[in-house]
Formats: sequence, structure tokens, C-alpha cells
Amino acid sequence: MNPGDDALALLRAELGDRVDTSPESLAAARADKSGHAASGQPIAVVHARDVADVQHTLRIASSTGTPVVTRGAGTGLAGGANAGHGEIALSVRGMDRILEVRPDDLLAVVEPGILNADLNAALEPYGLWWAPDPASRAISTVGGNIATGAGGLLCAKYGVVRDAVLGVDVVLADGRLLQLGHRTVKGVTGLDLTSLIIGSEGTLGVVVGATLKLRRLVPGEVCTIAATFPDVRTAAEASAAVTAAGAQPAIMELMDAASLAAVHSLLSLPAPTPGAAQLTIQTDGAAAVAEAEAIATVLRAAGGNVAVSRDRAEGERLLAIRRAMHPAMESLGTALIEDVSVPRSVLPAMFDEIARVEREHGIVIPTVAHAGDGNLHPNFIFAGEPDEFGVIEAPAHIWAAADDLFRAALRLGGTLTGEHGVGVLKRRWLADELGEDQWELQQQITRVFDPQGILNPGKVFAP
Amino acid sequence: MNPGDDALALLRAELGDRVDTSPESLAAARADKSGHAASGQPIAVVHARDVADVQHTLRIASSTGTPVVTRGAGTGLAGGANAGHGEIALSVRGMDRILEVRPDDLLAVVEPGILNADLNAALEPYGLWWAPDPASRAISTVGGNIATGAGGLLCAKYGVVRDAVLGVDVVLADGRLLQLGHRTVKGVTGLDLTSLIIGSEGTLGVVVGATLKLRRLVPGEVCTIAATFPDVRTAAEASAAVTAAGAQPAIMELMDAASLAAVHSLLSLPAPTPGAAQLTIQTDGAAAVAEAEAIATVLRAAGGNVAVSRDRAEGERLLAIRRAMHPAMESLGTALIEDVSVPRSVLPAMFDEIARVEREHGIVIPTVAHAGDGNLHPNFIFAGEPDEFGVIEAPAHIWAAADDLFRAALRLGGTLTGEHGVGVLKRRWLADELGEDQWELQQQITRVFDPQGILNPGKVFAP
Repeated sequence: MNPGDDALALLRAELGDRVDTSPESLAAARADKSGHAASGQPIAVVHARDVADVQHTLRIASSTGTPVVTRGAGTGLAGGANAGHGEIALSVRGMDRILEVRPDDLLAVVEPGILNADLNAALEPYGLWWAPDPASRAISTVGGNIATGAGGLLCAKYGVVRDAVLGVDVVLADGRLLQLGHRTVKGVTGLDLTSLIIGSEGTLGVVVGATLKLRRLVPGEVCTIAATFPDVRTAAEASAAVTAAGAQPAIMELMDAASLAAVHSLLSLPAPTPGAAQLTIQTDGAAAVAEAEAIATVLRAAGGNVAVSRDRAEGERLLAIRRAMHPAMESLGTALIEDVSVPRSVLPAMFDEIARVEREHGIVIPTVAHAGDGNLHPNFIFAGEPDEFGVIEAPAHIWAAADDLFRAALRLGGTLTGEHGVGVLKRRWLADELGEDQWELQQQITRVFDPQGILNPGKVFAP
Repeated sequence: MNPGDDALALLRAELGDRVDTSPESLAAARADKSGHAASGQPIAVVHARDVADVQHTLRIASSTGTPVVTRGAGTGLAGGANAGHGEIALSVRGMDRILEVRPDDLLAVVEPGILNADLNAALEPYGLWWAPDPASRAISTVGGNIATGAGGLLCAKYGVVRDAVLGVDVVLADGRLLQLGHRTVKGVTGLDLTSLIIGSEGTLGVVVGATLKLRRLVPGEVCTIAATFPDVRTAAEASAAVTAAGAQPAIMELMDAASLAAVHSLLSLPAPTPGAAQLTIQTDGAAAVAEAEAIATVLRAAGGNVAVSRDRAEGERLLAIRRAMHPAMESLGTALIEDVSVPRSVLPAMFDEIARVEREHGIVIPTVAHAGDGNLHPNFIFAGEPDEFGVIEAPAHIWAAADDLFRAALRLGGTLTGEHGVGVLKRRWLADELGEDQWELQQQITRVFDPQGILNPGKVFAP
């Protein structure tokens, strides 16, 4: 008998047809959108339909010492939800109900499996939205957004997931259900365990419900600015100048020449000027037009070729170029999508470092940045042979270049991951950023929640 | 030899003249602004001048098993920083430097002892501010704001302390220094220990530095609305209607009749209409005037007698009435200032509960509310004899009424404390709100940071 057989038998007895062992499901649960996959495959995928299903699964996992990897839509970019040999893949994707919408209290209570975009479509008739907007919002779940502490395009103005969650319901490793947080704007009763859960990547418990802080849809015009610059450093300097000038755009996206070229090719647009980089900026709210004009002035002074549009459709068309980044990268080969974040003032210096890494390692790293908040996504492109599950692992020379880039970000006062999480792909750099003492302390905290270490073992902290 | 003598000798040897055992200082360290004082008095007040002083103090405390109570300006309202028998009072009030202001990155690095108002005065020439604005901002420290997770008047629009801190430097119980958080807008590397420290009331470590997230000063006009209503319930319904209508004022303060009467008397203003309650509302930013007009319409429809002013000085005069609340309460007797927070839609129901508690317990509870975010400050007024230190403890019948009120807030989906913290005064209700499982888990987390339990023992969690 294999080690997982006991757990599988118990799961089947307790959860019946929610226990899925089809080869396709087991294979799919090994991977996310990072290009990385777990070794081996899980013993089962449990499709939880309610909180009780999650509690049953965790009680069985605890009693048999079986690891549990919680999954949503599988759109992660750090391997954090990849389930491997001997593990239970616990899917909460099917728990996708909106339990409550309260326009008067500006909150909603939802299950974790709902897609971010589906939630926002449901909130729109109320004149409300949930601000976190990862680029994956059409395909990623609210639970996954919470697990990773997701960001997106609008964060400098409208905040990240941590700013938009009032409370979470969590099932602990032993199956107990805890309700953390509150339904009020203010609340400081005890330690803030809600914030501790956000971004904990499945290592502390399973989020089975969330009380979300909503915003009113922003009234008024939206202005979109497209500005091209002769090179990426000039564009980065211009974006830093916009922030330093006191403007607060809703969106400020930077694309370097390699990114622009790839997207234009994918979308069959005319080729951009060689070497040129682009900023795409949106302003919104009551002062949108005045802000756009002030930003355009800063951009022109910084050497940009600037066009401002007050047409929403034109704005969407311009942003579609940015949104085509991921498919464009896939058209070039396999991409390791990185996620460093730096203080906004050193964005130009970080682009210098990327250019240095490209030179020294002899590779091309197409890079986009959420320039409004200093979060960069360098894409390490490589070729390789897919394994039996179709997964192509990044080769050693790519990891050497990524290592060089991570250390440069840390030297500049930055962080390893702005919004994707540590998962498995960045765990070897975690102690470099946290320091040994904090790294140790964080692991001790996970043991308080999960004494046996069955929740997403090998992720975030493991060497 | 007394138990603390060893520690005192070691502190003196290590820290010299930073160790203060004057009777006045020891007596002052027993109390905060809550009206409550610790039993007995501390063995010494250590006036830390730098991080090393804090580390030395904690190493001595650890090695001798001596409890440490960290203090800032002593303006707390829950007894959380009161130091008693056998404890070291560790004051970081003298660590009040601004180490860095970065307009380009919208951040500042400060020591914990700086007063909130002094920080904002220093930021003003840069066109910047730190948004947390507790009513005590002129006398409370940034470190104390962080320890309690403070709020204030502007929170519905501009957030609480947790939204305005990027990182903290913390000395652990054993003297080790940890740097938590980041300098970037986004950052999800590991668990969010920064948020865990915020609001932890001195139980996890000593905050010796903070990286603060700043905002640009809001340009444009400020409009102030004063609206009177025949009774407090109508005023509360009007404030809920403002939120439900989609308006987002910067400030929305509610004063009930007893509060208004006390303040008018203190300020020698004409007596208000008996029974009448007041809303004082400010709008700011690019749409301030239009928002003020929209809000005035909602208030009139809700039965208010409404005046709108675009004059800043007049606005300050109107808000001065609200700001005189605490001195006005002190003029009535001793006040136990409570701090429940409820979802905004049930603010009228919470005022009904306060009226019920007043009736059933035969007391008057003047109440103000940050109506924009649902945070109420009911003031339980009582008389009594001061003890040898001038402290008047709340009598049993006042606590019975407060207990009734707390339970009503919890029934309405609210929380025990919106911004003052648990301290000693609310610890007996903590498990009622958190549930036994979470209460236990939170204490286990404190033990990870502080295995000996020397950091602020008896606060927050202790029975």
C-alpha cells in the first residue's frame, strides 16, 4: 500500500464524488501558469463544495499526516499551488458564491472560488467594485488573490488586496473553522490575523470565505495617455517624474522595446520604433482631465512623444497592448515571469540593472512595469523540451540570471515579489530578504497554525 | 532584596542616567489617559535614546525575567501602556527623530517617539502628510499610533494606521532587532508581520522605527457642513444615508445632545436646542463643492437643518466643537471613554442600544461617533474618590453598563474597539469577540515572539 492510500480511502468514504483521481485532473493539479510543475502527482483532487467539505478534508489530512495543497483557478505564477507526490489537491474553485452584497456598508461576503472578474460583474449593477485588479482578473479567483496578496495595475491609487479585505474565514490544518477580522471600517480587537493570512500562500489555513471592502465605481471621465520615449531608461525616469510631481494616475504602465516589439508582432500592428519604450497612463475621477494635462506636461519635459485621449474606447485599445504581454511572451518561447518591486525613485536604476543582466548573461529580458508603484515583471525567455506533462523547467543559466536580478532589486531597497508570491520559485532567496532571524520566526508562526506542517509543505519557506 | 532589584542594578550599570526612579516618573508611568492605573509602580522608567538602549533594556529584562511595558506619550485610552509593580517602563518618547523623508517615493522613516502632529508639521513643507489623524494627534506618538492601530476622523476616506505603514523595525523580547516590511508600494515576500505588529499593543516587540506611507496634501477647497437634527437617531440615519448615497466625505462626525450640551457649556456658546444632535461633515479634493451640495441634499431629505460653508476658518470653528469633546467630558466628572465600532448601516440601531443602556442602568452616556466609519465613543461619566496617585477607577455599575453596551455592539456585527485597543480595560471581553479558538491561537503567536511572556504581560489577553 502506498502512503496516500489510507487518506484516499478515507476521502472517498467521506466525500464521495468530490474526490477526483482522473489522470487529467491529477496532471493539471501539478502545475500553475508559472511553467513550473511539482514532482510526481497528487493522490487526489478534492472538489470542495462547501466549508464542511474543506473541514472533512483537513481532518482526514491531519489524522493521516497527508499534505494538502489548496488550489483555486491554477493561475499562480510562483508554483505556490502546485500539488505533487503524495499530496491532496484541495480545490475551492467550486465554492464561488456571493453570499452578501451590502452597498450601505460597502462590503461583500464571498466564497473563495469566485473569479475576480465575475465578482466585479456582479457588483457593477450596485455601482460598486472590488479594487484589486491583477492582470489575470478574468481567470483568477478571489481566494487566489488573497492567498498571494495580489496587486495589479491600479494599486498606487486604489491599493492592493491587503487594503481591500476586512475579514476571512479560515479552516485550520486540524479542521477547525476560525472567523478572522470584522465587518467594520475600523477594528483593532486583538492581533490582525486577517492580514497575516493575506499573502500566506496556503501555509496557514484554507480560506473558505472573505468579507471584502468595496469601493463606489469612480464617476467621471477617464483619460488615457500614450507616451513613447527613445529608450527604456528615459521612460522610467519620466514615470518617476510623474510620481515626484505629485500626480496620482490610476494606471501607469511601462513597456520596454522588446515587450513592445513582441506585442506589436502578436497583434499584427506596425512595428514600433526600434529601442523605443512606452508609458500608458490613465487618470480618472473628478480631476481626470486636469491631471492628464499636468502629466502630459511632465512627460513632454522628460522627452516623451505624448498623445492624450478622452475617449474610453481608445483608452481600452491602448491598454490592450499592455494586456497582450503574456500571450506575446508565450509566442517567443517559455517565459519565467519575474516580479520584483522597487521604490519608485530607483525604477531607472533597476532598468539599468536589467540591461546589465541581459549583457552579462547573454539573454533578452523583455520587461513591463507597473511604473506607478515600482513593480517590474522581467520575462526570462527560454527554450527547452517539455516533460511528460508538457512542462518546461527553466534551465540553470536562466536561474543564474534571475538570481543576479533578484539581488540587484534587494540592493536597491526592493523586494523579491510584489504581487505573485514566493511559492516554490523564489523560496531560495527568501532568507536573503527577510534575514535568518525573521525567516525563522515566520516558520515558527506557521507551526502555530499547522503544527504537523501539512499545509502546502515545501512552499515559501522550504529550502 | 526585591524581585526587581537585580534588573534595576543591571539597568543602571548599562544605561546610567537613562534609568529614572524619581517618584514622579514612576507614578506617571502607572497611568495613561484612560483614567485607569496599574497596581503598584514600576521599578524604573528607562528613557531610551536609541535602538541600542532598547536592546540593552530587553536583554536585561529577558535575563532577569522582568516584564517590560513600552510607553510613548502616555495618551492611551485602554490602559495598554500602564506599568505596575515589578515592571520596567521603557519610554521611547525621546526617540523622536525623522530619519528620512522621500517625496519621490512617498515615504518617511521615523523613530517611534515623534508626535503625530510634529511629524505632519515637518512633512507639510514637502506637500506631504501622514493620514492617520487620531483626535489625540497633537499629543500622541507615531509609535503609540502603531501600537494601538489608531484611527481618527478621516479614516473612511483616507484609511487607518494599518493602511499607512510600509514597515517597522522591532526589537524582540530577547533584544534582537528585526526589520519587517518594505519600502515599496507592493511587497508580498513572506508573512505580513508588519500588519501583525500594528495594533499588537506592546505584546510582540518594541517598535523602534517605522517606514510610513505618505500622501500628497489634498489640493482644492474644503467644504464644511453643519446639520442639526431633532434627535440622535435621525442624525444617525442621516449619516448612514450619506454613505448609502455614495458620497465619501473626508470627515463625518456625529454628536448627541448630551455631548453638544457639555461642549457648548464648556466653550460658553449658546445652549443648543434640547435633544438635538449634530453632524459635522467635511468634503475635500477636486469635487469638494459638488460633493458638499449632494450631501446637503441627502441631509435635508433626512430632516436636517443644514448649513454649508466654503470658508476654511468657519470649518475649523465648527470642528473645534467636536474637538472639545474630551475636555467637556472631563468637566462633567471622570469619563470612561469607550470605542465600539459597528457597520455603518446599523449606526441608528447602535444609538438605540445606547439609549436602552442609559435607561436600564440609570446613567447618561454622552456619545460622539465617527459616523463616516461607524466608530462610536460613548462616554460613561462617573464620580469617585481619587487614589493616592489621583486615579479614579470606574465603579462596578459603570462596568455593568459598559458590558451591556459591548455585547450590543457585538450582536450588531460590531467590534469592541475600533481604534483605542484592548489594553487592560477590554481584555475580559476579548474572547467573546474572537472566540476561544482564535483567542488561544493569538496567545500562541505572542509566545513565538516572546517565549517568556515579559512583553506587556496582563495586557490584551490576560483575564
